[in-house]
Amino acid sequence: MKFEAKIRVQYYETDSMGIVHHSNYIRYFETARTEMMREAGFPYDAMEKAGVWMPVLSVTAEYKMPALYDEVISVFCWAEKLRGASIDLAYEVRGEDGRLCATGRSSHGFTDPDLKPLRMKKVQPEMYEFFSSMTEEE
Amino acid sequence: MKFEAKIRVQYYETDSMGIVHHSNYIRYFETARTEMMREAGFPYDAMEKAGVWMPVLSVTAEYKMPALYDEVISVFCWAEKLRGASIDLAYEVRGEDGRLCATGRSSHGFTDPDLKPLRMKKVQPEMYEFFSSMTEEE
Amino acid sequence: MKFEAKIRVQYYETDSMGIVHHSNYIRYFETARTEMMREAGFPYDAMEKAGVWMPVLSVTAEYKMPALYDEVISVFCWAEKLRGASIDLAYEVRGEDGRLCATGRSSHGFTDPDLKPLRMKKVQPEMYEFFSSMTEEE
Amino acid sequence: MKFEAKIRVQYYETDSMGIVHHSNYIRYFETARTEMMREAGFPYDAMEKAGVWMPVLSVTAEYKMPALYDEVISVFCWAEKLRGASIDLAYEVRGEDGRLCATGRSSHGFTDPDLKPLRMKKVQPEMYEFFSSMTEEE
Repeated sequence: MKFEAKIRVQYYETDSMGIVHHSNYIRYFETARTEMMREAGFPYDAMEKAGVWMPVLSVTAEYKMPALYDEVISVFCWAEKLRGASIDLAYEVRGEDGRLCATGRSSHGFTDPDLKPLRMKKVQPEMYEFFSSMTEEE
Repeated sequence: MKFEAKIRVQYYETDSMGIVHHSNYIRYFETARTEMMREAGFPYDAMEKAGVWMPVLSVTAEYKMPALYDEVISVFCWAEKLRGASIDLAYEVRGEDGRLCATGRSSHGFTDPDLKPLRMKKVQPEMYEFFSSMTEEE
Repeated sequence: MKFEAKIRVQYYETDSMGIVHHSNYIRYFETARTEMMREAGFPYDAMEKAGVWMPVLSVTAEYKMPALYDEVISVFCWAEKLRGASIDLAYEVRGEDGRLCATGRSSHGFTDPDLKPLRMKKVQPEMYEFFSSMTEEE
Repeated sequence: MKFEAKIRVQYYETDSMGIVHHSNYIRYFETARTEMMREAGFPYDAMEKAGVWMPVLSVTAEYKMPALYDEVISVFCWAEKLRGASIDLAYEVRGEDGRLCATGRSSHGFTDPDLKPLRMKKVQPEMYEFFSSMTEEE
């Protein structure tokens, strides 16, 4: 199941080339995954308050076609691989006309506020279940 | 005395108009005042660790001429008015050729981490003295 | 008439104080005014293509209470004063619970792509009419 | 040869976790490569004026240890692989104490302003030579 977040491209996200600056896709990915988790019942701020952090371990983005000012892009997000204390998410950014603007991936650890790894299955079984079911569907 | 911070304009700070996005001047102001305080012996992170915060109460910017990608702008910063628990700073942004790009002001409270006002003169007499001497010079 | 834009606070907009970085309110203002103009039938990119720019001449913000990660803030925007070749807009940012987070103002010129002033009434009478009607209602 | 750019971490680049937001490393990479090219005699704005663009095709970042507010990080940049119409750059971000904060890579095409590929060797032989010599040294 691919979650879809719709995001309006802002003027301050464009650069002199007249297109979205490439660093902002990394932020769009974050917006999409937090929306996805909120929808699933695990808003990120509640998780942080519960002592579960999901620091980004790595991120990649491949740029295909520029996203443009003012268009409402679709950022699709889904779980690719779930491990005991980490998860890989994948992304696809599409323009209003459906063209593929970018793809990407991010890996996240599950940690406590001191960035020590947490066994998700034990600490947050429901959330683990959610991610697990998402991954199986792929 | 006007402190001068030199800042290289980054590509990601420009927008579709091919100039620095206006919101970034507010960030340049911050860079200049933190440089100024570091030079004066009061680096902001040391202050935060000592329990003194300087939240922004208000900010203004007037835009004269656009700053451009890759130029090294000069951001001048100085104290305009010191009060018991707050201070007004002023800014001037100039391009490499000396043209005036922007002017601005920011007001800051002196507070503890819970954002309760602090009497600067009492809590940080040396820092108060520094700001005081700066203000008198104007 | 106050236009209301709803904006979800993003993680990358917060800072070490755990609140929205003050520079981002300037961006929220921009988001609100572009939403307002789109609703009114004058999307900013169409205006730019038609040769009408609205560069920011000045901006002010007063910070009252911090906006927090993940809350959906309301950014109200309205026209305060319309002149022949410029306009003043005002803003109010409120948290999910209605508390006042910030107020602000921005002034904009109406110019051509070379930043030369345009007589709005002549060049874009419908848009002038829209702003005019908004201002009268105040 | 690894080029080293020194960058002061700004307050607005931190997030609620009290560390640099992961998206900003992508911007640090850009700062480092533009500094490197300026030093080599190919400032990016001169290149754009000469009709040579270097759009980002892909970017990756691996996060090791957080960079902190106010520290002066070192961002190392070097060429990894040069092809006829594209180049791979690599990055390493280190904290003031030398700890490894992040590594990364970016791929860039050489294009004209319409984003059509350019044969670098032909269009900008000196620049091609520079990148070529950098790559050989590896």
